[in-house]
Amino acid sequence: MSDALVSALLGAVPGATTDPVALGTHRTDRSGGAGTAGAPPPALPLALVRAASVEDVQATLRLAHEARVPVVPRGAGSGVAGGAIAGAGSVVLDISGMDRVLELDPVDEVAVVEPGVITAHLDAAAREHGLMYAPDPASAAISTLGGNIATNAGGMRCVKHGVTREAVLGLDVVLADGRLLRTGRRTLKGVAGLDLTSLFVGSEGTLGVIVGAALRLKPAPVVTLTAAAAYGDVRAAAAACAAVSRERLQPSLLELLDRATLKVVDRAQGTDLAARGGALVIAQADGPGARQEIEAIAAVLGKEATWVEQGVDDASSEQLLAARRLALPSIERFGRALIEDICVPRSRLADAIQGVEAIAARTGVAIYSFAHAGDGNLHPIISYDAALPEAPPAVHEAADAIFGLALDLGGTVTGEHGIGLLKREWLARELGPDSLDVHHSLKRALDPHGILNPGKAF
Amino acid sequence: MSDALVSALLGAVPGATTDPVALGTHRTDRSGGAGTAGAPPPALPLALVRAASVEDVQATLRLAHEARVPVVPRGAGSGVAGGAIAGAGSVVLDISGMDRVLELDPVDEVAVVEPGVITAHLDAAAREHGLMYAPDPASAAISTLGGNIATNAGGMRCVKHGVTREAVLGLDVVLADGRLLRTGRRTLKGVAGLDLTSLFVGSEGTLGVIVGAALRLKPAPVVTLTAAAAYGDVRAAAAACAAVSRERLQPSLLELLDRATLKVVDRAQGTDLAARGGALVIAQADGPGARQEIEAIAAVLGKEATWVEQGVDDASSEQLLAARRLALPSIERFGRALIEDICVPRSRLADAIQGVEAIAARTGVAIYSFAHAGDGNLHPIISYDAALPEAPPAVHEAADAIFGLALDLGGTVTGEHGIGLLKREWLARELGPDSLDVHHSLKRALDPHGILNPGKAF
Repeated sequence: MSDALVSALLGAVPGATTDPVALGTHRTDRSGGAGTAGAPPPALPLALVRAASVEDVQATLRLAHEARVPVVPRGAGSGVAGGAIAGAGSVVLDISGMDRVLELDPVDEVAVVEPGVITAHLDAAAREHGLMYAPDPASAAISTLGGNIATNAGGMRCVKHGVTREAVLGLDVVLADGRLLRTGRRTLKGVAGLDLTSLFVGSEGTLGVIVGAALRLKPAPVVTLTAAAAYGDVRAAAAACAAVSRERLQPSLLELLDRATLKVVDRAQGTDLAARGGALVIAQADGPGARQEIEAIAAVLGKEATWVEQGVDDASSEQLLAARRLALPSIERFGRALIEDICVPRSRLADAIQGVEAIAARTGVAIYSFAHAGDGNLHPIISYDAALPEAPPAVHEAADAIFGLALDLGGTVTGEHGIGLLKREWLARELGPDSLDVHHSLKRALDPHGILNPGKAF
Repeated sequence: MSDALVSALLGAVPGATTDPVALGTHRTDRSGGAGTAGAPPPALPLALVRAASVEDVQATLRLAHEARVPVVPRGAGSGVAGGAIAGAGSVVLDISGMDRVLELDPVDEVAVVEPGVITAHLDAAAREHGLMYAPDPASAAISTLGGNIATNAGGMRCVKHGVTREAVLGLDVVLADGRLLRTGRRTLKGVAGLDLTSLFVGSEGTLGVIVGAALRLKPAPVVTLTAAAAYGDVRAAAAACAAVSRERLQPSLLELLDRATLKVVDRAQGTDLAARGGALVIAQADGPGARQEIEAIAAVLGKEATWVEQGVDDASSEQLLAARRLALPSIERFGRALIEDICVPRSRLADAIQGVEAIAARTGVAIYSFAHAGDGNLHPIISYDAALPEAPPAVHEAADAIFGLALDLGGTVTGEHGIGLLKREWLARELGPDSLDVHHSLKRALDPHGILNPGKAF
């Protein structure tokens, strides 16, 4: 059956190949492989299809559906949860070549794109009209919009401007059997029928393959201003973030870095952040009231701070944000990094960070925490010796403990990265049996043979 | 089977009744009845259940599921699309008595509510903490949050602050078989599993009964300012709205009233709006930059206006908005009103309004148009003699033509009210056969016996 499928694909789709080099480079993603071990899956997929058109995607799925062969869709492969890992016996469907911005309407403030468009490219195109594409995952320079939609990607700006779901008006989706489905619309509002658009957003390739999207753009802020403050410890920093909420201020970015992160940035970059305090908060405000807002935010942040500073222009503002931007690269200089992604009610952020610190102390594992504090979305980064063939048991123990902590605090095991392959076992504990049963019912309704990214997401 | 079910309900749920007076008042909604005729359905439902708890809802659905008897959930009955109309042989499930705000957390900016809470009550409770519940359907004073969620209700503020879907973090839903499902979470972000929350938002009672919700609150604007401008005609008014977009300004409200609406308000209220121009635009700005924003908006609106004015305080601002608030009540003084609800790409708004005017001229039916211009969401209000026993054929003809116009302009037949019973036939034309097939697959997956609000929504 598999051989016949491969022959059919090679005959039907110009971008199909069985070249082992291409298969090798398309079987994993930025999570590093099939598990925290960082190793790629043992065997190559059956074939790779580089789709150039909606028709290519339809032909691939139609054939795979008939042959009951798994299909693993992928964009740039920048995911960190293993959602694009492809094992033996599967077909990899790469849509990154479908990368045109088909339309950008500056009055409707809507863009129509193919799924392979790089996120930052759409944002840049929008800015030519005074608009922006609001979701800003850290991977924006390399990730595709299709991948962002498939994982419902977040970012630093979404505390004010919303996650990917809020930006998606409608989708073109190829279903498991090859049919092309249109969801949603190009209008800014619309409630005709079920919200199929949101069902596909964040479904990690398990319900259909996104081949087009109508996206909402937003006015780009005329001005963005930054403030930063340091505190004795994480609890004081989180309290300052909560105080910003209580004053009903709306930062467009509110990030928190713990002591371990400040130290590793200092070590890698030669800065002296840790001398300012045991935790750092960085805030931005944007829009027509930005100056007034950032001053109010800085006043609140400054109250219990050991150090506080306000950006006076773009350069000094960017400088204040540099510590955050350099956090992950700094950690990655000294070991292999596992990027975790829990989210808790924001009032529990200090409990989460201190819980992670306790886990690090107990397991002896190095863990660096930084957070989208305004959303309660925490990234504990577990680091271990890159020379090791696989992650030591203590790393798994620490990761497990972090997921358990998130659930104990009323949170989730993933705020913006997705479940992929790596967090599946934790999903069952988060959702419970009735919800999982509903998930599987919906999956069967849309993909009766279970060919779409099986074993991922749920 | 029906008799046995009624006995079982009367035995199992304290709020169950077969009192004909209660059945009579719970079989229709604000749409006026089973069709544009305004007549209530001919026969009474089997029973009414006034649920006082989640367990009451579970018991009702468990019994109805076993008996294969339709259940029509309802909140306040304020819907205008017939979603809560209950025919013979069905059980009406009234959740309006479950009306407690269970929690309101001012740091997390989250409220946990029962579904029968009146929308305006939650907003008022939030304002005590400097917060607001952002979605503001015109029915906020009488509609329930459960009903708002079931229809994904909009409102005037949502051009800036988002529709109901954006405010819903998680839901408690009783499934067709009586199981209680938790969707989403209390955290501000989270991507574990499918977005079941959005699937239930706007599903009009066809997939489950919403018995609880975690809702996101937003900081209440410290100041809201208003400007209004009149124009020679609707096209000039729509062009002014488009110019506001092109300047990348973000009004928190942007409404447009056509000539017919201005005249009927004048007639009912003794004002002289129509003397100012042939179309009126009202805009608001809110937040810390509101003063600067409203001045910029007023400058853009003023360019081609025949009249322009800016509110200087709350009283004068509210006065400028009065024309909009009085539009529907004024229309309803002179006839029975059918409230339509189309949405088009906002660049097509002038085409939509002029198209509606042409339909009014052609059919001889009185149609008044006002719009949430910033969203392209237009409410053509069809009016006919209230003394007539049913709507004349020309009214049906006009309504049909309006729906066709919306689709021809790349829009939808409902922007914020829902499909309910009244627009079902148009949905098929909007969605097409593949999408409808997916709708029915999902419906079967969640409600295999089809007991939940059958014949509604899709």
